[in-house]
Amino acid sequence: MSEYVIFDNEKVIEYIKKVGSFFDNDAVISSNEFGDGNLNLVFRVQDTGGNSIIVKQALPYARCVGESWPLTLDRARIEANVLKRHAAVCPANTAKVLHHDSTLAVTVLEDLGQLQILRSALNKAQTFTNLGRDIAHYLARTSFYHSSFYLSPTNKKALVTEFTNPELCAITEDLFFDDPYRQSERNQYPQALESHVAKLRNNVPLLLEIAKLKAKFLTASEALLHGDIHTGSIFVGTHETKVIDPEFGFFGPIGFDLGSFIGNLLLNYCAQQGRIKALPQRRKMQIYLLDTISVCLREFYVNWLSLAQQDTKDLALQASGFAEHFLISVLQDSVGYCGSELIRRTIGLAHVADIDEIEDEQTRLLVQQQALLLGEQQALLLGEQLILNAKNCQSVEDIYQLIIGSVQ
Amino acid sequence: MSEYVIFDNEKVIEYIKKVGSFFDNDAVISSNEFGDGNLNLVFRVQDTGGNSIIVKQALPYARCVGESWPLTLDRARIEANVLKRHAAVCPANTAKVLHHDSTLAVTVLEDLGQLQILRSALNKAQTFTNLGRDIAHYLARTSFYHSSFYLSPTNKKALVTEFTNPELCAITEDLFFDDPYRQSERNQYPQALESHVAKLRNNVPLLLEIAKLKAKFLTASEALLHGDIHTGSIFVGTHETKVIDPEFGFFGPIGFDLGSFIGNLLLNYCAQQGRIKALPQRRKMQIYLLDTISVCLREFYVNWLSLAQQDTKDLALQASGFAEHFLISVLQDSVGYCGSELIRRTIGLAHVADIDEIEDEQTRLLVQQQALLLGEQQALLLGEQLILNAKNCQSVEDIYQLIIGSVQ
Repeated sequence: MSEYVIFDNEKVIEYIKKVGSFFDNDAVISSNEFGDGNLNLVFRVQDTGGNSIIVKQALPYARCVGESWPLTLDRARIEANVLKRHAAVCPANTAKVLHHDSTLAVTVLEDLGQLQILRSALNKAQTFTNLGRDIAHYLARTSFYHSSFYLSPTNKKALVTEFTNPELCAITEDLFFDDPYRQSERNQYPQALESHVAKLRNNVPLLLEIAKLKAKFLTASEALLHGDIHTGSIFVGTHETKVIDPEFGFFGPIGFDLGSFIGNLLLNYCAQQGRIKALPQRRKMQIYLLDTISVCLREFYVNWLSLAQQDTKDLALQASGFAEHFLISVLQDSVGYCGSELIRRTIGLAHVADIDEIEDEQTRLLVQQQALLLGEQQALLLGEQLILNAKNCQSVEDIYQLIIGSVQ
Repeated sequence: MSEYVIFDNEKVIEYIKKVGSFFDNDAVISSNEFGDGNLNLVFRVQDTGGNSIIVKQALPYARCVGESWPLTLDRARIEANVLKRHAAVCPANTAKVLHHDSTLAVTVLEDLGQLQILRSALNKAQTFTNLGRDIAHYLARTSFYHSSFYLSPTNKKALVTEFTNPELCAITEDLFFDDPYRQSERNQYPQALESHVAKLRNNVPLLLEIAKLKAKFLTASEALLHGDIHTGSIFVGTHETKVIDPEFGFFGPIGFDLGSFIGNLLLNYCAQQGRIKALPQRRKMQIYLLDTISVCLREFYVNWLSLAQQDTKDLALQASGFAEHFLISVLQDSVGYCGSELIRRTIGLAHVADIDEIEDEQTRLLVQQQALLLGEQQALLLGEQLILNAKNCQSVEDIYQLIIGSVQ
């Protein structure tokens, strides 16, 4: 056990030589820090033969959220352990942890530099055939195998404690469910949106739905979530999809992860209006995004149901029809979390490059308005759905029509 | 810190003299063990002047559940700490902890010997005017002040960990939600009920509702529950109601406690058919029980809503209409948990004296059949309710009519 010390390129090389056999003994290795430096240091360590690894170290503060906000180093332990547990049940779509040191808050990971970050790729109008299927596969397997369907109650309770993550959950609790719906210094939006934002603060049915979503986030220990699965937490290539950065992981409602992912695809959908001038190409990209959402929802449902039918260990939860009932509630939740993701990414503290990079101010404003309206509709649809009659939304098709009904 | 050692009367006196100033220095004190000896030792320690205290010690096994089943001593810590936390927000209706020692699994409590155990009193057809109101008050205050409405998320997460109670929750998970719905050596019921019990095992809609109730028990950290609030965990007198024995305490769905209490009143309702021969007196007692349920539901709702309106700290959960929405879901849950309590107390391992003490076999069988039917109806009503339309059950009056509709 060593004390925590902030790494530089020299210290990283020294550390890597000490702890692991990542390289040949006589290899000449070099290190290059390339993270954005807001939350973590990220080093690429490589030898002259083209072998490389990633060394990620958590910093004891989060410059990007509020001013010099101290932030627990324990998030490095959570992140490494979520990755390990997710990789154990979905190795194909989870970044591989090679080594972890909780005291130094250091994790050594496989280098995925041959892939791209999904957000950047979508912003360049690149598409990936397997994306929807792969993320559905990842979300279904990681959530099913960390749910009460599969884990013994005793084992699950121990994991809930291990993955209790108060400081990072608090960021979501504040930025996702609170700030956008009241006046807060952390909110970020152009003056031109003020009247719209003010209306949103007084939208009683919307605030009620947001309360339900927050309450579920605070109390429902359904499964070990990624906790922050936006398009910046996904590496993609032609044949590969790898999830990274689950430092917000905790036991929460499964619909939160699914909704976050879909919400980020819809944010990109809105942003394309300001990115691709030619209408046919823009429509093509937007149809790709909707198709990815459709595939993701359907594959998630089918995968999860199949896992539940084969592998549910809990006797009572094996009851005929229960997995279907549970999955519909997960899908309904995901619509609500998707809506709140659209809202908070448009007017809250943390925006998306998809929209913020649009240079023309008027176009950007139009896109923001569309994202905000879409977000409200999604969140409210959830409420209407549940209030009117849960029967109305009893299939994946219904859910998909709900989501895309308002964007076509 | 001492090692764990099982107490006898002599050791108790020695311990009490060492740790506290419970008696005058020159007092002559004596001890008498009077517990049933299955789970815990219970001593009354008194001086010659009529002062007395209760010393409760957990034993490292539970003879009453399965054969020589070892059981964690940690339940003594949980019990003492739940009592302390509940007393902090509802001193009037919580037994007072005077001292606790986790290593010895010993808790010193106020002596409530001037009161009676509610189950025994109801079995003697005694009634208590304040009972429904007092338990409503206890359940509303203890659950509200340990919910996300009031606790900060960080504080609540720490308490969820502190009150993680896997071994005692496992008993409920097995005996309440699993055993009654399948063949298990632990089930206890007369041969004459076999065909009814077999039908229950094949009742698909019922098994689905039980799965929903178990899933909520396993995942919903709504508040710090008592966890076992049957009529044997309540002391009553003309002007006093005191809750004891929360060793099953954990963060779970609020409707579980409310449903357990109501379920035990309904078990007594059924039992009166075999206890009070004269019809007018029997009806009088049964009407008292239904009235107590009615008062309890109404007062619970009114108290909780009033606490939520005055004291909700969470900004998002202050949304207009959310407390009402949440409370209706708690009441709906309570109907389901009430139903499953009726079923498991009739055919599972742990029965109630209310019914078991009925000497005439045929009468006892009739009572058991009524309790079982009532249990199924309650559990199924929940499902029908939610499936048909949640709107149908949007008030306390609706819930009460649901519960009593089938017993009148």
